[in-house]
Amino acid sequence: MSRAGALYGVGLGPGDPELVTVKAVRLIGAAATIAYFAKRGRESHARKIAQSYLRAGCEELLLAYPMTTERPFYTLEYVEALRVFYAESAERVASVLAQGRDVALLCEGDPMFYGSFMHIFERLKPRFHVEICAGVSGMSGCFAAARQPMTWGDDVLTVIPATLDEEVLTQRLSATDAAVVMKLGGNFPKLRRVLTRLEMIDRAIYVERGTMTNQKIMPLNDKRDDAAPYFAMVLAPGRGRRP
Amino acid sequence: MSRAGALYGVGLGPGDPELVTVKAVRLIGAAATIAYFAKRGRESHARKIAQSYLRAGCEELLLAYPMTTERPFYTLEYVEALRVFYAESAERVASVLAQGRDVALLCEGDPMFYGSFMHIFERLKPRFHVEICAGVSGMSGCFAAARQPMTWGDDVLTVIPATLDEEVLTQRLSATDAAVVMKLGGNFPKLRRVLTRLEMIDRAIYVERGTMTNQKIMPLNDKRDDAAPYFAMVLAPGRGRRP
Repeated sequence: MSRAGALYGVGLGPGDPELVTVKAVRLIGAAATIAYFAKRGRESHARKIAQSYLRAGCEELLLAYPMTTERPFYTLEYVEALRVFYAESAERVASVLAQGRDVALLCEGDPMFYGSFMHIFERLKPRFHVEICAGVSGMSGCFAAARQPMTWGDDVLTVIPATLDEEVLTQRLSATDAAVVMKLGGNFPKLRRVLTRLEMIDRAIYVERGTMTNQKIMPLNDKRDDAAPYFAMVLAPGRGRRP
Repeated sequence: MSRAGALYGVGLGPGDPELVTVKAVRLIGAAATIAYFAKRGRESHARKIAQSYLRAGCEELLLAYPMTTERPFYTLEYVEALRVFYAESAERVASVLAQGRDVALLCEGDPMFYGSFMHIFERLKPRFHVEICAGVSGMSGCFAAARQPMTWGDDVLTVIPATLDEEVLTQRLSATDAAVVMKLGGNFPKLRRVLTRLEMIDRAIYVERGTMTNQKIMPLNDKRDDAAPYFAMVLAPGRGRRP
């Protein structure tokens, strides 16, 4: 019986295909099978970043999220649907590995930082050899795209999802030097209220699709409407020691 | 008169030369001049990461920090010495740019995240064309090296320098889900006390030189001595929504 294949969680960076690492290019190019997540009916963003590095004729495994629109996160129905989805996805990956084929699971940004890969990793690591290839995080891509130094000297940085309650957002943002607020979408008006109240609004920067050709970057004060994709971010740079 | 050269702040990732991005490889390979920071009398770590990607015969500009040992951060003497060092370094880079030569300034990790590059960037951006190439941050490298998913669902991540007061460390760490504590060095015993008091010690992971061939990774509880390099980190993973 042949040995099982290895699973590689491959970080692809924030969106610009040139921000893929040399290691990721090697792993993607060597993989007999690539796997990637996508919203049902949409192009996989991860696959698009990796496209020029794929091995000709590699097998592809599409893991399509069950929801096409955002749902409230804390419904039992949502959590259960995701649980089933991750469990089934892990078994689909496992069945390829069991055939002795390596799988490169393509991950936007950094695999271990709010990544869907982590749900597959936790399920498969007891049974298979798994390796992780770090990637440039979405937020690091946004710092560069916005040309914005983020943390100076002893600054504390808080990374916080805008999905949290207004009170929690207020508490956490009031106790930090620098902040990255993720997962905007419908939470954007709430975040704007909090940043205004905390007098952080004047140094806040709005970044949409950072490092991609269609990126939008502007001072938050210049953004007049409340429309923001879920993966847009707001940066509030630190103001620490600057000799 | 010929046009001035461009400055590139090039992120090199956490240490493994394969974790350099495709874009960084291109920029480093094209640069007539590379510049890098190093402790006086020590090999530049950034140069070592980039070594195999350098253009043959490129000019090199070493920016050697004035201190060879760590000093207390808040002395006026220290801050003033650093100010002079960054101002002089910026002018040395500027004089190369003024000759019409491009300069790639090599940055460990991500240039905009606690990076020395930021001090050069702030000084030269009004006078020269500056581009920033994001890199894999040191902490992302540590997440992968430790095989540790860090943030789940709506987890808040706090990145905090261990240089801060014990009371501030305690406050900030008590109000987060996941934490990355940087700049250990002599602050390590203090950090250990804080994590013990907050009952975060059992999930804390010690990472030294993550992604490098001589990396050391262990549960913090297994680390018996108090010796830690300044660039070692402690990770405390989040425990958020995990369908």
